[in-house]
This record gives sequence, C-alpha cells and structure tokens, in this order.
Amino acid sequence: MTTEELFSLRIRVPAEDVRQQARKQWDAVMKPIDGLGDFEKMICRIAAVRGTTDPDITRKALIIMCADNGVVVHGVSQTDAHVTNDVAVMMGQRKSSAGIMAGAFPVEILTVDVGIASDRTPAGVIDRKVRKGTADLLTEPAMTAEECLQAIETGIEMARLCSEKGIGLIATGEMGIGNTTTSAALVCATTGASPAEVVGRGAGLSDEGLRTKLSVVEDALAFHFGARHAGCADSPDGAFEALRRVGGLDIAGLAGVFIGGATLGIPVVIDGLISAAAALCAERMVPGCRASMIASHSGRERGTAAVLRELGLRPVIDADLALGEGSGALMLFPLLDMAMSLYRDGTRFDGSGIDPYERFGG
Amino acid sequence: MTTEELFSLRIRVPAEDVRQQARKQWDAVMKPIDGLGDFEKMICRIAAVRGTTDPDITRKALIIMCADNGVVVHGVSQTDAHVTNDVAVMMGQRKSSAGIMAGAFPVEILTVDVGIASDRTPAGVIDRKVRKGTADLLTEPAMTAEECLQAIETGIEMARLCSEKGIGLIATGEMGIGNTTTSAALVCATTGASPAEVVGRGAGLSDEGLRTKLSVVEDALAFHFGARHAGCADSPDGAFEALRRVGGLDIAGLAGVFIGGATLGIPVVIDGLISAAAALCAERMVPGCRASMIASHSGRERGTAAVLRELGLRPVIDADLALGEGSGALMLFPLLDMAMSLYRDGTRFDGSGIDPYERFGG
Repeated sequence: MTTEELFSLRIRVPAEDVRQQARKQWDAVMKPIDGLGDFEKMICRIAAVRGTTDPDITRKALIIMCADNGVVVHGVSQTDAHVTNDVAVMMGQRKSSAGIMAGAFPVEILTVDVGIASDRTPAGVIDRKVRKGTADLLTEPAMTAEECLQAIETGIEMARLCSEKGIGLIATGEMGIGNTTTSAALVCATTGASPAEVVGRGAGLSDEGLRTKLSVVEDALAFHFGARHAGCADSPDGAFEALRRVGGLDIAGLAGVFIGGATLGIPVVIDGLISAAAALCAERMVPGCRASMIASHSGRERGTAAVLRELGLRPVIDADLALGEGSGALMLFPLLDMAMSLYRDGTRFDGSGIDPYERFGG
Repeated sequence: MTTEELFSLRIRVPAEDVRQQARKQWDAVMKPIDGLGDFEKMICRIAAVRGTTDPDITRKALIIMCADNGVVVHGVSQTDAHVTNDVAVMMGQRKSSAGIMAGAFPVEILTVDVGIASDRTPAGVIDRKVRKGTADLLTEPAMTAEECLQAIETGIEMARLCSEKGIGLIATGEMGIGNTTTSAALVCATTGASPAEVVGRGAGLSDEGLRTKLSVVEDALAFHFGARHAGCADSPDGAFEALRRVGGLDIAGLAGVFIGGATLGIPVVIDGLISAAAALCAERMVPGCRASMIASHSGRERGTAAVLRELGLRPVIDADLALGEGSGALMLFPLLDMAMSLYRDGTRFDGSGIDPYERFGG
C-alpha cells in the first residue's frame, strides 16, 4: 500500500436514516425518553455504522497492538522495555490483565506483535512484526514511511479478519513501554496542544521522570516540526508524517484498525490515550473515520479527554483508569450488551397497555 | 421499631486491616499500580465491608422500591400517577427496563410495593404496602412517623433477606411518579442546597413544568422548615423528620436498605438522585452507613453529584442516565465482576518471571 492508496480509502458512511429509525425504536421502549442517555446514542451509532436497525454485536473482539519504542533510552518510563515482551507472553495465554478481565465473556482477543523488540513473537500472539521496536525519535523518525504503512496495513488486516469472522464490534488496546510518550507527542502534533497540556505520568512516573518525559516530547516536536508544531498534522500527509516521526508501530497499527473498521462498517471502541491518539491520527489520514468510533473511558492520562473532544466523542466510564491493554474499552462491552438488550427486547409502550403517547417520569 | 431503636442501630464498621490487605493484593497483580483506578478502591471497600480479602459477590440483588407520591397533584410530572403501578406490573414479570437489561445476568430482583396507590400489589411484587401513596406534602407531612418507620423497616428487612440468601452486593432502584420532586426537597433539607441547585427535569419536564416543580419544592421547604431549611436535617431526628415530611415511602424504603446493608456488612450500590437522597438520609439517621455505600453513575438529574460528593463517593459511570429502576446501579455489576476477576485471578508479579519490585508502565 502507498500513502496515496491509504489516503484514497473510502469509508463506509454511516446510514443516517438507520440512525433515525434506531432513535425511534428507542423512543418506543417503555422508559423515560433518552433514559439510557449516552448509551442510546451509542446504540444508534452502532446501528448506523452497521447499516441496520438490528445490528448484531454478540460477537466482539479486542485487538491489542504490541510494540516497543526507541524513545525509552531517554528514561521516559520507570520500567524496562523487556516488559512489553513479558506481558505479550501473558497475553498470548490470555493471562494478562485484559485477558483475565474478559474471563468467560464472549470476546475474541487478537494480540498482535507489530514491533516488539524481541527475536521471537510469543506463542498465541499474531506475528506481524514490522521491526524490533522503533528508532529513537529524538535523533531520527521513529520509522520509515514503508514501516508505518506496513503497521497501518496490519491494523486494517485485523479489522478485515474480524469482519470475516462476523464480529460486530471491535475494541482497541495496546502494550508498549514508552507509548504514552509517543502518544503525547503525536497528540501535540495532531491537536496543536502544548506538551505541558498532554504529558502525564503514564503508569506512575516520579516528578523527575515526568520532567524528563516532558522535555523529551518538547525536544521531539522541535526536532521534527521546528518552532511551531501546531497545524503540522492537519492534512493526511502531515498526519502520516507525524505518526511515523513521533508515533509508534502500536499506534500505527491501531490507526489501521480504526481505518479498517470505518471502511468495513464495524464500530471500533477507543480505549485510553494511546488508542485515542491513533483514532485522531486515523481521522486525519482518512477523514470520516471518526463516524464509526466509540469512546469508552476518560482515562487517567492527561490529554485523553482533549483528543476525545476533538473527535466529538464522550466517554461514559470515568474511573481514573490507567491499565492499558484495552481494558477500559473492554469494560464498555457488557454495558453495551445491557443497552442492546433493552433496545432489542425492551417492553414497548404499544404492548403494555400504557398510552404510547404518554411518557413516564419520576 | 421506634425512632430511638432506629437511631441506636449499630453499623458493622468496615475492617481497615482487610482494606489494606486488599490494597496489597491489588498491587501484586501484574499491571500498573492503581491501573484499574476507582474500581480497585471499590473492590477494597467491598472487601472491608464484607470483612474478608476474598469477598464473594457472585450473587447480587437489585432491590426496587415502588411507591406513589401525593405531590403529583401539583403537576410536578408530565406523567399520570397510574404509571407507577403499570411499570410495577411489568417489573413483577421482569419485563421492565431494568429486568430486561439484567437479562441472563445472575441478579435477583426484589421489587417491593412499599406504597403504590393501588388496591392490589402486582403479581411478582413483594407486598409491603404501607399506604396507598403519600399525602400532599404542600399541606401536611407526606407520612406519619409510624409509616416512615415501617417503610424503613421494610428496607432493612429486604437487606436481611438478601443476607440470608448469601447475596454479597445489593443495588438500589425505585419507581414512583413524582419522586424526583420529593428527592429534590429532601436533598435540599439534608445538604442545605437551594431548590434551584437541585431541582431538575426528572424524566423530561417542559420549562413550565420545571418552574412548577421548583416552586413546589420551595413551598414545601418553607411550609415544613420555615424561612431557613439549611441544617434542619443534620441530626438523626432532623433527618427522619425531613424524610417523613418531604420524602416518600420509596425513599424511606431505600434508606432502610442502606441502613440494613451497613448493619449486616453488605455493600449497597447507589443509583441516581432518589437513591442518593435515601443514602444521605440514611447516613444522617445512622451515622457511619456511608462506609458501605458504593456510587455507580452521576445521573442526568441535577443534585445527584452534590449528594455523592457529600457522601465522599465518586461515580464511575457518566452517561447522562435518567431511567430509574436501579438501571444505572445494575450497570456497575458487570464492571465490578470484571474488576473482581482481575483482583482474584490476575497474574501475580511473583509468578510471571517479572521482578515483583518493578512496575511496568507505558
């Protein structure tokens, strides 16, 4: 795939008439109008993206992109890079946190090695290793254009795989030491925000670590985009360049999942900062993608909320989450199942003996 | 039960040592420290309330208190009062919204008629009717002290029933046309807030309806508490008086559930405004109750957030919910199950080959 081919991908535009029919179907349920609030909107969006008022989201998937980041040599994480691989080993056995949380819940977990800094992809993990971790973004672009495209294509491929399996809803997750640093840099590039507004403590940096991380992001932006980074990623080309220069293979892979979902008509759930950064970058590269995105949680990491606002999305879970692996996106699944039950099987006003033109309230 | 007996009930104080052990158990799980954020705190709280680091919340219950409110004669709801009974009929068949949402999820739903304005309690609904709806609070107290006590006792009884069944977690819900009005008045009395800060649109009032509701709440407070309502419900006696004067039988019943849970060591989940009003009133009548309360969602209705703050609780779902029936509290259940899976079965640092003193992050 070339960048030209990427930028010319056509998304499947959500069906506005289906959304409105879904809205009417909600209003016929015996409950206060808009009673289920944002969940009603989410189900309407899913219906529109799937192109049917009766979307089947029984089968769900979580796609976890794993990759290492060259930036870790600068001490932006309190943890050694080998942990990316250690956790991926657990993921392959469905014993990582997200795997345990999913438990018996019917969700297919696709863990993808898109760039772990190891020789061998762990068992149970899909081998799509583009390279063994990215380059150090303070001295060169994190990856070449070809590598970035390959990671994006991997994401698109995973979305296609889900589509072929009849999966109706995809959640996104990641594992990669250093990836809140790359995400913060990418968010600055795509939103124009200053590093101070976006850089956070990741999974628990000290004050000193936070200062280091902040200056690394500032230096990276200055090195790649000069004195002013705002606006550099507004065009598809600019967003792609920002992704390959200061992003990571995991982020590129997730951007591919969002793009793939949008072209195939599968809603894709955003997790935390890394996933949100990928989502915004996807929208910039292939405008219209965001119509098939769904927010899950607000996350602890600074900047997540700003990216979601930029995408016009509202998270429904606000629990100070900072686990990664797509665990927050996963938590949206049972909530959507509950909402879908009510949407599909809720008692209708017309069948209950209650006047359909009357609405009840407290 | 007399008010003296009520006020002298002893709550089971959560075990602080258990909470700290639970905290340590979380920190041993292979994930960023505090990665599951508020859910980690909730599980620690549940452990402390249950008095064991391995609390069993497999069996859960939703207690829905149903009652009518005399205040509806003043046009504070866009809906006729008979809808309370109509929906209770559906609840008895597990066909109301919360019942449908619960679906196959293992939750026992106890629907209680604590004061529906009807002659007969619907099939499948527990008959504890205290009276057929409350009196008009603009002209007299909503109920007598005896009636209020009876409703509270009903709630305590339901919590005891749950305890006997081995239920480890209780959610609260309600159905009662007019009950966002009574709750708003009670919240003003218990927090000292002004009606303008608390009164909301319920399940969808018009601007005119909202003005009516606001003036009804103002008039009720003036009638029962004089020129200044702030502080009137700070003592157990004051809180009880506020509950019986401007509250409702559903709220009193729910207050009983919170009190019962606190005395029996069962955590009780707060739903929206009505449930939150009951929770705060319970805490005022039997101080210490709040230690066993868990917040679920922030709710659309104004005032809910203020009450939760007063109780020192943070909701984790923020989805503009306004359905009632305990549906928002119910949505917390699968999230807690996911968190509990990770807490109980998460891969430990010591078993994974990863240095237990190292913590990973993004």
